[in-house]
Amino acid sequence: MTAPEANPRSASPLDLSRLLDPAAIAIIGASTNGKSISGQPLMHMLAARYAGKLYPVNPNRAEVQGVKAYRDVREVPGPCDAAVIAVPAAHVATALEHCGEAGIPFAVILSAGFAETGEQGAPMQRALDDAIARSGVRVVGPNCVGVMNVRSRAYMAFGGALGDKTLKPGPLAVVSQSGGFGLSMMALANAHGVGSNYVISCGNEADLTFFDFAHDFLDRDEVGMLAVYMEASTEGVRLRELGRHALETGKPILVLKVGNGTAGRRAASSHTGRLTADYTLFQAAFREGGYIEVNDLDELADVARLVIGGRYPKGRNVGVLTGSGGWGVIVAEHCEKAGLQLPAPAEATKQKLHNLKSTFASLNNPIDQMANYADQYKTVECVLDDPSFDQFMVRSGSGPDVGEWATRMIELAGSTDKPIIVNWASVPGRDADVRERLEQAGFLCATYASRGARAAGLFTDYALKRRKFNDRGAVPEMRPIVRQSLEFGCVGGALAEHESKQCLARYGIPATREVLLSLQDILALSVCPVAFPVAVKLASPDIPHKTEADAVRLGITSLDSLKRAAEAVHASGLRHAPRARIDGISVQEMASGIEVILGAVNDPNFGPYVMVGLGGILTEVLRDVTHRFAPVRLDDARDMLDELKSATILRGYRGAPPADVDALARAIVNLSWLISDHRDRVSEIDVNPLFVRARGEGVVAADALVVLR
Amino acid sequence: MTAPEANPRSASPLDLSRLLDPAAIAIIGASTNGKSISGQPLMHMLAARYAGKLYPVNPNRAEVQGVKAYRDVREVPGPCDAAVIAVPAAHVATALEHCGEAGIPFAVILSAGFAETGEQGAPMQRALDDAIARSGVRVVGPNCVGVMNVRSRAYMAFGGALGDKTLKPGPLAVVSQSGGFGLSMMALANAHGVGSNYVISCGNEADLTFFDFAHDFLDRDEVGMLAVYMEASTEGVRLRELGRHALETGKPILVLKVGNGTAGRRAASSHTGRLTADYTLFQAAFREGGYIEVNDLDELADVARLVIGGRYPKGRNVGVLTGSGGWGVIVAEHCEKAGLQLPAPAEATKQKLHNLKSTFASLNNPIDQMANYADQYKTVECVLDDPSFDQFMVRSGSGPDVGEWATRMIELAGSTDKPIIVNWASVPGRDADVRERLEQAGFLCATYASRGARAAGLFTDYALKRRKFNDRGAVPEMRPIVRQSLEFGCVGGALAEHESKQCLARYGIPATREVLLSLQDILALSVCPVAFPVAVKLASPDIPHKTEADAVRLGITSLDSLKRAAEAVHASGLRHAPRARIDGISVQEMASGIEVILGAVNDPNFGPYVMVGLGGILTEVLRDVTHRFAPVRLDDARDMLDELKSATILRGYRGAPPADVDALARAIVNLSWLISDHRDRVSEIDVNPLFVRARGEGVVAADALVVLR
Repeated sequence: MTAPEANPRSASPLDLSRLLDPAAIAIIGASTNGKSISGQPLMHMLAARYAGKLYPVNPNRAEVQGVKAYRDVREVPGPCDAAVIAVPAAHVATALEHCGEAGIPFAVILSAGFAETGEQGAPMQRALDDAIARSGVRVVGPNCVGVMNVRSRAYMAFGGALGDKTLKPGPLAVVSQSGGFGLSMMALANAHGVGSNYVISCGNEADLTFFDFAHDFLDRDEVGMLAVYMEASTEGVRLRELGRHALETGKPILVLKVGNGTAGRRAASSHTGRLTADYTLFQAAFREGGYIEVNDLDELADVARLVIGGRYPKGRNVGVLTGSGGWGVIVAEHCEKAGLQLPAPAEATKQKLHNLKSTFASLNNPIDQMANYADQYKTVECVLDDPSFDQFMVRSGSGPDVGEWATRMIELAGSTDKPIIVNWASVPGRDADVRERLEQAGFLCATYASRGARAAGLFTDYALKRRKFNDRGAVPEMRPIVRQSLEFGCVGGALAEHESKQCLARYGIPATREVLLSLQDILALSVCPVAFPVAVKLASPDIPHKTEADAVRLGITSLDSLKRAAEAVHASGLRHAPRARIDGISVQEMASGIEVILGAVNDPNFGPYVMVGLGGILTEVLRDVTHRFAPVRLDDARDMLDELKSATILRGYRGAPPADVDALARAIVNLSWLISDHRDRVSEIDVNPLFVRARGEGVVAADALVVLR
Repeated sequence: MTAPEANPRSASPLDLSRLLDPAAIAIIGASTNGKSISGQPLMHMLAARYAGKLYPVNPNRAEVQGVKAYRDVREVPGPCDAAVIAVPAAHVATALEHCGEAGIPFAVILSAGFAETGEQGAPMQRALDDAIARSGVRVVGPNCVGVMNVRSRAYMAFGGALGDKTLKPGPLAVVSQSGGFGLSMMALANAHGVGSNYVISCGNEADLTFFDFAHDFLDRDEVGMLAVYMEASTEGVRLRELGRHALETGKPILVLKVGNGTAGRRAASSHTGRLTADYTLFQAAFREGGYIEVNDLDELADVARLVIGGRYPKGRNVGVLTGSGGWGVIVAEHCEKAGLQLPAPAEATKQKLHNLKSTFASLNNPIDQMANYADQYKTVECVLDDPSFDQFMVRSGSGPDVGEWATRMIELAGSTDKPIIVNWASVPGRDADVRERLEQAGFLCATYASRGARAAGLFTDYALKRRKFNDRGAVPEMRPIVRQSLEFGCVGGALAEHESKQCLARYGIPATREVLLSLQDILALSVCPVAFPVAVKLASPDIPHKTEADAVRLGITSLDSLKRAAEAVHASGLRHAPRARIDGISVQEMASGIEVILGAVNDPNFGPYVMVGLGGILTEVLRDVTHRFAPVRLDDARDMLDELKSATILRGYRGAPPADVDALARAIVNLSWLISDHRDRVSEIDVNPLFVRARGEGVVAADALVVLR
């Protein structure tokens, strides 16, 4: 028995090796009933011929399922790398302390009845937390389905899937916040020929968390990708870090995120905050990092096959080769839905195809060679090098010659690094050996056009992101502007509009010209200090939302109306907030252009982000907005604008000149540096509206709101 | 040999019985090579043991594939119900004439080389057309994959799928405009346990068309549903008729429609016409009729299983029963995406569940009973009668008890008419016998949550449409207004605005008050005849698009401005169209409210339809519009408004009062009767903008354009 280790929490980076590949396992509470939760780990490990040592602990039995049992884990005669704890909740804390005394570094607690049951389990949870701290044992769970090493058959877990004799190890590692679902991910991926090395169900995360496991897996050579099921997380920053690490290691994280229906985000002072759902930020984190978000397990398995294939497309252009016109059309439509493109082949390729003297229904894309499958490999050969195509979808033969067809395809694939997806024409179950041969050669065989196209689209998004990340690796991130020091007139809360605009100006975002005057000064004016038409707004630190206080008048065109407007906004403001401090009345140039809402929030979970959308109904009703974490690079800012459905309007709608999209993109970047540089003080920023003028004429903020923490 | 029949085209309704269930088949051009297209029909029918008579026709052989052959089809010794023609294109017309002389009523022409090859095949196509007319033989094809009767194994076709020994007959009939794809539909459905009675590939439709086959199938007792692949059709009216017939017979048409990417619609005078894509009208026809539009063949197979199950849900409320929290969440989210709802169970149900003394992680929906599968049937029993639920999704057990689980579920399903979808937890290939037992009992077993939910959503849409159709059957369609006779001042082209508004007024759609005056009259005015603010528009039959001619001024608030505006629009109009006839200048009340575009078009292919959307960017950039064929019922008009993404704005957006949605719905209905009653004269109508006022205050058309044929 080894001496208890020092508490590893305080020490060097976590090393989960002994948990993941244990040479000896104690099973505390091991039951003689192999169907019960506490009987399953032993039963499954025996059945699967786990080669390490197994020590059942059961005070009432001399042996369990034919294996010598011990009364107490401290009596186990050899060192253990991990203990499975499957005793009633009330006994878990004690069992864990015993593990600590026995020098066992890891425990997998299957038992339920802790925090997940609410008040009822709270005392148990507290006792467990104490035991974790005292014992120094690192804990998976409680209330989890366990930990599996598929390679060594260390099944410290329970569940029907463990009895699956077809389970093969492979490059996948599964981390799941739902126990049963993690096993389903592993089992279904396995059924699609994608093996897993490890499966971990996180349970209540009383100690080790989702992120601990995921980070560890990314650093393991035997892990090629992660599949994760995520319910909720308040650790947005860790999610982003994990995503970055995934890009660094080049290993994708296939993520199934649920619980996205919750509309509401925490109360926010800004429009930007109110227009941002929790899930929006998860999606932004997935988009930014090495994640591939999938919709269901079929997508997961398909994308995993493409990862295994290891061919990363360099672009979105797909060549479709078909022998069935109908299938070609369907693939083409699904590819376009999935964000891919079908360019025509180069003229040289068409000439090569023509020279084949075969019969084609179409030489364009899809290339339809009708039923001439015997010659199809020649067609494929002609197109492989065509720079028009980054990847291919090829309809397989079916019938007696499909084996020969597969051999040819595998040969041909060896001469290119472009991915080839096979649309598998045989009905499910037929020619399974040929299909397996193709899969072992790294092909994705998709029976349905929609599934193949969807997987290709998701994988291409990832491949291009990964490429961009690697290309950028060498280039340091450029600041468009040095860090500006900002003076804030108040300790917290909202800055006045003119102060807010000054902050923006320091970061290169111009605002409408304005003059701040007292009511008396305005009533005494004989010439308007700003050219008509003007806007008149009450300036008060206590009235951040001036429109709601009816303290704004727009489009004033005469001195008389200006004076009436000044009186009116002053009166409205005081009606709205009788004790408001009044800084004065702002007389502003009326801006024009395309109305945009630009915003930034320093999110407590995810960190600072920016948001952009076109003003009015488009953002507020149709939620046509897009988000990125700050700071943002210029090309990402351009991507944001391209993502907007209403981008058409910026490009010059109904004969209007194109808007100054460059200036808008620069404004996004600059605002992102503002929130990023001042994240310690600034919590939210609205630039609403920002007017985007015609190309070359820039942008101008007509209103701004900076909220301090 | 029977005498040639009279040309059936001129006679009573088409009866395809002899084609679909032939007792004897001639194969003209039958080859000794069973792999060739011309050898396959005989080869496959022999292999599949077709029980009817087979007469190969081959002038060079005494026998083909072991069957006595004939030099000429006219020498065949017995009567034939159908001939397969598989000779080179140049010989097809003659072969067909010989069939006519031999009294064979139907020919399936597999040969290619006709209209589909463009100019090259045009002479062949003309010769064929002549032969069809002369011979009286009804033709399938040419350039088709053929006709299959799976029950009798009359395979007058070619293709790898014919060699599939597992093909079983069943309630499906497949009609495909792509040859190979029709066989794929049949083969994949068969692999999912959905058998087909008939498969027809339409080919070039030189004689018999898609619609002939589809109509015939709907009327056959042995056909329970259709699966159709549709590339394009200009026969919108027949598509709608077929959809109606499908509803009458209660047999759904599962349709995979491709070729939807074509953005452009024919040139139109109206905004409405320009905002309508071809595919929009297909979708409207699918929505209206007994169609279920599917996205791919997996969806088709899933929905087909639900049709076979024969349980039509009465509403969108799903009860989800799960033993895995993770799966429950995923199903819930996919159900909501598919347009279904997850209400909480009734209190009485919760009490019943509570009384089970089982452990539930949640008694709400999803009802999560964790791993207690042995007792799951009791849970299902508790919820079946709950009126909160119209249908169920139940996670299956897995592992050794799944057979017993299935037996219980099949028993329970017998006590309800609500559909139950099984989320099948075993990995593909495992427990296949149990799965088959469930499928034979009418269950859809869905491995993936997304697929199960999507199929349920599509099937529910259909079930509710079918129910509505049947309920309406008894109630005659109510006209909201008797047919109005309209006077048109011109023979064709666009009516002037005031005339257009008069047409609308006759159909109960009020317009802004207006006075038509000459420029001289206006310049002489001392009092404006309409209360300020007013709009000023040039009235000319030659300037239908006044805004483009800069012949509109809005928001005029003084007599002076009115006079200036009248001069300006007069001058602009004449600049735009110097020879335009001027009816005068219209001075109109300025309307306010929510701006809507309402339109109607009498489409040459589909017939009259109406369109509605919110004005401006929402329709023009985001295409947030919706369509129905005319006439429209009031509840359908309300559905249209609910379909708009921007419907929020009508319901009272940002504190605005709710708009008069009832009046808007009535305006849609009335406009639909206008276009319907006058389809012989009116081709397009725009009411743009129509202002929708606050609830109770109606709608008012601020502009209108009626275009005559």
